[in-house]
Amino acid sequence: MVHIAAAGPVDEDIRPGEKAVELPAGFDAGLYFIGRIRTPWTERGACPRRGDAQEGPVCTIEIAPRWAQALTGVADCPRLQVLYWMNRARRDLVLQSPRHDGDTRGTFALRSPVRPNPIASSVVQLVAVEGLNVHVRGLDCLDGTPLLDLKVQHD
Amino acid sequence: MVHIAAAGPVDEDIRPGEKAVELPAGFDAGLYFIGRIRTPWTERGACPRRGDAQEGPVCTIEIAPRWAQALTGVADCPRLQVLYWMNRARRDLVLQSPRHDGDTRGTFALRSPVRPNPIASSVVQLVAVEGLNVHVRGLDCLDGTPLLDLKVQHD
Repeated sequence: MVHIAAAGPVDEDIRPGEKAVELPAGFDAGLYFIGRIRTPWTERGACPRRGDAQEGPVCTIEIAPRWAQALTGVADCPRLQVLYWMNRARRDLVLQSPRHDGDTRGTFALRSPVRPNPIASSVVQLVAVEGLNVHVRGLDCLDGTPLLDLKVQHD
Repeated sequence: MVHIAAAGPVDEDIRPGEKAVELPAGFDAGLYFIGRIRTPWTERGACPRRGDAQEGPVCTIEIAPRWAQALTGVADCPRLQVLYWMNRARRDLVLQSPRHDGDTRGTFALRSPVRPNPIASSVVQLVAVEGLNVHVRGLDCLDGTPLLDLKVQHD
Protein backbone atom coordinates (compact mmCIF):
# COMPACT_ATOMS: atom_id res chain seq x y z
CA MET A 1 0.00 0.00 0.00
CA VAL A 2 1.27 3.44 -0.96
CA HIS A 3 0.41 6.97 0.10
CA ILE A 4 -0.44 9.59 -2.51
CA ALA A 5 -0.47 13.17 -1.29
CA ALA A 6 -3.84 14.86 -1.48
CA ALA A 7 -3.99 17.25 -4.43
CA GLY A 8 -5.52 20.65 -3.77
CA PRO A 9 -7.97 21.78 -1.11
CA VAL A 10 -10.51 19.39 0.36
CA ASP A 11 -13.81 20.53 1.81
CA GLU A 12 -13.76 19.53 5.50
CA ASP A 13 -16.97 20.85 6.98
CA ILE A 14 -19.13 18.42 8.93
CA ARG A 15 -22.86 18.82 9.69
CA PRO A 16 -25.04 17.61 12.60
CA GLY A 17 -25.47 13.83 12.58
CA GLU A 18 -22.52 13.19 10.28
CA LYS A 19 -19.87 10.66 11.27
CA ALA A 20 -16.28 10.24 10.08
CA VAL A 21 -14.14 7.09 10.33
CA GLU A 22 -10.36 6.70 10.17
CA LEU A 23 -9.23 6.15 6.58
CA PRO A 24 -7.08 3.12 5.69
CA ALA A 25 -3.30 3.64 5.99
CA GLY A 26 -2.68 3.40 2.25
CA PHE A 27 -4.23 2.98 -1.17
CA ASP A 28 -4.92 -0.32 -2.94
CA ALA A 29 -4.83 0.86 -6.57
CA GLY A 30 -3.98 3.97 -8.58
CA LEU A 31 -5.86 6.13 -11.06
CA TYR A 32 -4.69 8.06 -14.10
CA PHE A 33 -6.41 11.33 -14.90
CA ILE A 34 -7.06 10.96 -18.64
CA GLY A 35 -8.49 14.40 -19.36
CA ARG A 36 -10.45 17.31 -17.91
CA ILE A 37 -14.10 18.32 -17.99
CA ARG A 38 -14.99 21.87 -19.00
CA THR A 39 -18.30 23.16 -17.61
CA PRO A 40 -19.88 26.58 -16.94
CA TRP A 41 -19.66 26.04 -13.14
CA THR A 42 -16.65 27.34 -11.21
CA GLU A 43 -18.03 27.03 -7.66
CA ARG A 44 -19.62 23.98 -6.11
CA GLY A 45 -22.72 25.91 -5.04
CA ALA A 46 -23.38 26.84 -8.67
CA CYS A 47 -23.45 23.23 -9.98
CA PRO A 48 -26.90 21.77 -10.65
CA ARG A 49 -27.75 18.88 -8.33
CA ARG A 50 -28.17 16.59 -11.30
CA GLY A 51 -27.16 16.95 -14.95
CA ASP A 52 -29.87 17.12 -17.62
CA ALA A 53 -28.97 15.18 -20.77
CA GLN A 54 -31.76 16.85 -22.77
CA GLU A 55 -31.85 20.48 -21.63
CA GLY A 56 -28.52 21.00 -19.85
CA PRO A 57 -25.75 23.16 -21.31
CA VAL A 58 -23.17 21.64 -23.65
CA CYS A 59 -20.02 20.75 -21.69
CA THR A 60 -16.71 19.59 -23.13
CA ILE A 61 -14.66 16.58 -22.16
CA GLU A 62 -11.04 17.22 -23.12
CA ILE A 63 -9.14 13.97 -23.68
CA ALA A 64 -5.37 13.95 -23.05
CA PRO A 65 -3.41 13.38 -26.31
CA ARG A 66 -2.05 9.99 -25.18
CA TRP A 67 -5.57 8.51 -25.37
CA ALA A 68 -6.61 10.08 -28.71
CA GLN A 69 -7.10 6.79 -30.56
CA ALA A 70 -9.39 5.50 -27.82
CA LEU A 71 -11.97 7.96 -29.23
CA THR A 72 -12.29 5.89 -32.44
CA GLY A 73 -15.99 5.18 -32.92
CA VAL A 74 -17.22 7.45 -30.10
CA ALA A 75 -18.93 9.71 -32.67
CA ASP A 76 -21.32 6.77 -33.27
CA CYS A 77 -22.26 6.45 -29.57
CA PRO A 78 -25.35 8.64 -28.89
CA ARG A 79 -25.13 7.95 -25.15
CA LEU A 80 -21.97 7.80 -23.05
CA GLN A 81 -21.16 7.11 -19.42
CA VAL A 82 -18.66 9.54 -17.93
CA LEU A 83 -16.68 8.67 -14.79
CA TYR A 84 -14.85 11.49 -13.07
CA TRP A 85 -12.99 12.23 -9.86
CA MET A 86 -14.51 14.56 -7.30
CA ASN A 87 -11.14 15.77 -6.10
CA ARG A 88 -12.50 18.31 -3.63
CA ALA A 89 -14.53 15.85 -1.54
CA ARG A 90 -13.53 14.41 1.82
CA ARG A 91 -13.52 10.59 1.87
CA ASP A 92 -14.09 9.60 5.48
CA LEU A 93 -17.80 10.18 6.18
CA VAL A 94 -20.04 7.12 6.70
CA LEU A 95 -23.13 9.07 7.80
CA GLN A 96 -24.12 12.28 6.01
CA SER A 97 -26.77 14.97 6.38
CA PRO A 98 -27.22 16.45 2.90
CA ARG A 99 -27.71 20.20 2.83
CA HIS A 100 -30.86 19.94 0.69
CA ASP A 101 -32.89 17.74 3.07
CA GLY A 102 -31.03 17.37 6.36
CA ASP A 103 -31.98 13.70 6.85
CA THR A 104 -28.99 11.64 8.01
CA ARG A 105 -28.29 8.56 5.87
CA GLY A 106 -25.41 6.23 5.11
CA THR A 107 -22.99 7.21 2.37
CA PHE A 108 -23.99 4.18 0.26
CA ALA A 109 -27.66 5.29 0.35
CA LEU A 110 -26.63 8.65 -1.17
CA ARG A 111 -24.95 9.90 -4.35
CA SER A 112 -23.06 12.68 -2.53
CA PRO A 113 -19.50 13.41 -3.73
CA VAL A 114 -18.31 12.56 -0.21
CA ARG A 115 -17.46 8.82 -0.24
CA PRO A 116 -14.46 6.51 0.24
CA ASN A 117 -13.68 6.67 -3.48
CA PRO A 118 -15.15 9.91 -4.84
CA ILE A 119 -15.94 8.59 -8.32
CA ALA A 120 -18.97 10.17 -9.99
CA SER A 121 -20.89 8.56 -12.80
CA SER A 122 -23.10 10.45 -15.27
CA VAL A 123 -24.90 9.28 -18.37
CA VAL A 124 -24.72 11.98 -21.04
CA GLN A 125 -25.96 12.63 -24.56
CA LEU A 126 -23.31 13.09 -27.25
CA VAL A 127 -23.42 16.39 -29.15
CA ALA A 128 -20.21 16.12 -31.24
CA VAL A 129 -16.63 14.85 -31.24
CA GLU A 130 -14.12 17.43 -32.45
CA GLY A 131 -10.51 16.24 -32.30
CA LEU A 132 -9.72 15.58 -28.64
CA ASN A 133 -12.90 17.34 -27.47
CA VAL A 134 -16.13 15.48 -26.79
CA HIS A 135 -19.11 17.82 -26.47
CA VAL A 136 -21.99 16.42 -24.39
CA ARG A 137 -25.12 17.40 -22.44
CA GLY A 138 -25.91 16.04 -18.97
CA LEU A 139 -22.98 16.91 -16.72
CA ASP A 140 -23.21 18.74 -13.39
CA CYS A 141 -19.59 18.95 -12.18
CA LEU A 142 -17.15 21.78 -11.53
CA ASP A 143 -15.06 23.19 -14.35
CA GLY A 144 -11.68 21.45 -14.45
CA THR A 145 -12.85 18.16 -12.92
CA PRO A 146 -10.44 15.27 -13.70
CA LEU A 147 -11.77 12.63 -16.10
CA LEU A 148 -11.40 8.92 -15.27
CA ASP A 149 -13.31 7.12 -18.01
CA LEU A 150 -15.66 7.42 -20.96
CA LYS A 151 -17.70 4.36 -22.09
CA VAL A 152 -20.47 3.72 -24.57
CA GLN A 153 -23.82 3.43 -22.73
CA HIS A 154 -26.11 0.81 -24.26
CA ASP A 155 -29.42 1.38 -22.46
CA MET B 1 2.81 11.16 -8.85
CA VAL B 2 3.42 7.84 -7.14
CA HIS B 3 3.87 4.29 -8.36
CA ILE B 4 1.75 1.49 -6.93
CA ALA B 5 2.92 -2.02 -7.74
CA ALA B 6 0.46 -4.04 -9.82
CA ALA B 7 -1.41 -6.53 -7.63
CA GLY B 8 -1.73 -10.05 -9.03
CA PRO B 9 -1.63 -11.33 -12.59
CA VAL B 10 -2.73 -9.15 -15.50
CA ASP B 11 -4.05 -10.54 -18.76
CA GLU B 12 -1.58 -9.41 -21.47
CA ASP B 13 -2.80 -10.98 -24.69
CA ILE B 14 -3.28 -8.68 -27.67
CA ARG B 15 -5.43 -9.39 -30.77
CA PRO B 16 -5.16 -8.27 -34.40
CA GLY B 17 -5.87 -4.55 -34.84
CA GLU B 18 -5.34 -3.72 -31.17
CA LYS B 19 -2.98 -0.93 -30.16
CA ALA B 20 -1.20 -0.21 -26.88
CA VAL B 21 0.22 3.13 -25.73
CA GLU B 22 2.83 3.87 -23.07
CA LEU B 23 1.18 4.40 -19.69
CA PRO B 24 1.84 7.58 -17.68
CA ALA B 25 4.84 7.44 -15.34
CA GLY B 26 2.73 7.59 -12.18
CA PHE B 27 -0.75 7.74 -10.72
CA ASP B 28 -2.75 10.88 -10.02
CA ALA B 29 -5.04 9.56 -7.25
CA GLY B 30 -5.49 6.48 -5.08
CA LEU B 31 -8.34 4.06 -4.45
CA TYR B 32 -9.37 2.15 -1.35
CA PHE B 33 -10.85 -1.30 -1.81
CA ILE B 34 -13.90 -1.12 0.48
CA GLY B 35 -15.08 -4.72 0.18
CA ARG B 36 -15.26 -7.74 -2.12
CA ILE B 37 -17.90 -9.09 -4.48
CA ARG B 38 -18.89 -12.76 -4.24
CA THR B 39 -20.25 -14.31 -7.44
CA PRO B 40 -20.61 -17.83 -8.87
CA TRP B 41 -17.92 -17.14 -11.54
CA THR B 42 -14.31 -18.07 -10.86
CA GLU B 43 -12.93 -17.75 -14.42
CA ARG B 44 -13.34 -14.80 -16.74
CA GLY B 45 -14.67 -16.99 -19.56
CA ALA B 46 -17.54 -18.11 -17.31
CA CYS B 47 -18.81 -14.58 -16.54
CA PRO B 48 -21.93 -13.45 -18.45
CA ARG B 49 -21.22 -10.57 -20.84
CA ARG B 50 -23.77 -8.46 -19.03
CA GLY B 51 -25.48 -8.87 -15.66
CA ASP B 52 -29.24 -9.39 -15.50
CA ALA B 53 -30.91 -7.47 -12.67
CA GLN B 54 -34.13 -9.48 -13.02
CA GLU B 55 -33.10 -13.07 -13.78
CA GLY B 56 -29.40 -13.19 -12.81
CA PRO B 57 -28.18 -15.15 -9.77
CA VAL B 58 -28.02 -13.47 -6.36
CA CYS B 59 -24.49 -12.23 -5.70
CA THR B 60 -23.15 -10.81 -2.45
CA ILE B 61 -21.30 -7.56 -1.87
CA GLU B 62 -19.24 -7.90 1.32
CA ILE B 63 -18.53 -4.51 2.88
CA ALA B 64 -15.36 -4.09 4.98
CA PRO B 65 -16.20 -3.46 8.67
CA ARG B 66 -14.74 0.08 8.63
CA TRP B 67 -17.59 1.20 6.35
CA ALA B 68 -20.46 -0.59 8.15
CA GLN B 69 -22.41 2.56 9.06
CA ALA B 70 -22.33 3.74 5.44
CA LEU B 71 -24.94 1.00 4.82
CA THR B 72 -27.53 2.89 6.89
CA GLY B 73 -30.64 3.22 4.71
CA VAL B 74 -29.40 0.96 1.89
CA ALA B 75 -32.17 -1.54 2.70
CA ASP B 76 -34.60 1.12 1.41
CA CYS B 77 -32.82 1.49 -1.97
CA PRO B 78 -34.40 -0.93 -4.48
CA ARG B 79 -31.77 -0.11 -7.11
CA LEU B 80 -28.06 0.42 -6.51
CA GLN B 81 -25.08 1.32 -8.64
CA VAL B 82 -22.01 -0.80 -7.94
CA LEU B 83 -18.52 0.37 -8.95
CA TYR B 84 -15.75 -2.20 -8.86
CA TRP B 85 -12.15 -2.63 -9.94
CA MET B 86 -11.30 -5.02 -12.75
CA ASN B 87 -7.92 -5.85 -11.31
CA ARG B 88 -6.98 -8.39 -13.97
CA ALA B 89 -7.29 -6.06 -16.97
CA ARG B 90 -4.40 -4.41 -18.79
CA ARG B 91 -4.71 -0.61 -18.97
CA ASP B 92 -2.76 0.46 -22.04
CA LEU B 93 -4.96 -0.43 -25.06
CA VAL B 94 -6.52 2.41 -27.08
CA LEU B 95 -7.85 0.21 -29.90
CA GLN B 96 -9.49 -3.15 -29.13
CA SER B 97 -10.91 -6.06 -31.11
CA PRO B 98 -13.45 -7.72 -28.80
CA ARG B 99 -13.49 -11.50 -28.96
CA HIS B 100 -17.27 -11.63 -29.53
CA ASP B 101 -17.31 -9.56 -32.73
CA GLY B 102 -13.77 -8.86 -33.92
CA ASP B 103 -14.49 -5.27 -35.04
CA THR B 104 -11.74 -2.91 -33.94
CA ARG B 105 -12.97 0.15 -31.99
CA GLY B 106 -11.60 2.71 -29.59
CA THR B 107 -11.61 1.86 -25.89
CA PHE B 108 -14.06 4.70 -25.12
CA ALA B 109 -16.57 3.24 -27.64
CA LEU B 110 -16.53 -0.06 -25.70
CA ARG B 111 -17.34 -1.26 -22.18
CA SER B 112 -14.47 -3.78 -22.12
CA PRO B 113 -12.62 -4.21 -18.80
CA VAL B 114 -9.44 -3.11 -20.62
CA ARG B 115 -9.21 0.69 -20.16
CA PRO B 116 -6.91 3.29 -18.57
CA ASN B 117 -8.86 3.08 -15.30
CA PRO B 118 -10.54 -0.34 -15.16
CA ILE B 119 -13.60 0.77 -13.20
CA ALA B 120 -16.78 -1.17 -13.98
CA SER B 121 -20.27 0.14 -13.27
CA SER B 122 -23.36 -2.05 -12.88
CA VAL B 123 -26.90 -1.16 -11.87
CA VAL B 124 -28.31 -3.92 -9.68
CA GLN B 125 -31.52 -4.81 -7.91
CA LEU B 126 -31.38 -5.12 -4.13
CA VAL B 127 -32.44 -8.48 -2.66
CA ALA B 128 -31.53 -7.97 1.01
CA VAL B 129 -29.06 -6.38 3.40
CA GLU B 130 -27.78 -8.76 6.09
CA GLY B 131 -25.17 -7.22 8.37
CA LEU B 132 -22.17 -6.34 6.19
CA ASN B 133 -23.51 -8.35 3.25
CA VAL B 134 -25.61 -6.79 0.49
CA HIS B 135 -27.34 -9.39 -1.68
CA VAL B 136 -28.17 -8.20 -5.22
CA ARG B 137 -29.03 -9.38 -8.74
CA GLY B 138 -27.39 -8.00 -11.88
CA LEU B 139 -23.64 -8.49 -11.49
CA ASP B 140 -21.38 -10.21 -14.03
CA CYS B 141 -17.90 -10.04 -12.46
CA LEU B 142 -15.40 -12.58 -11.18
CA ASP B 143 -15.68 -13.90 -7.63
CA GLY B 144 -13.43 -11.85 -5.32
CA THR B 145 -13.56 -8.63 -7.37
CA PRO B 146 -12.60 -5.56 -5.28
CA LEU B 147 -15.45 -3.14 -4.50
CA LEU B 148 -14.96 0.62 -5.01
CA ASP B 149 -18.38 2.11 -4.36
CA LEU B 150 -22.06 1.49 -3.78
CA LYS B 151 -24.61 4.28 -4.45
CA VAL B 152 -28.37 4.56 -4.54
CA GLN B 153 -29.61 4.60 -8.17
CA HIS B 154 -32.57 6.94 -8.70
CA ASP B 155 -33.71 6.12 -12.23
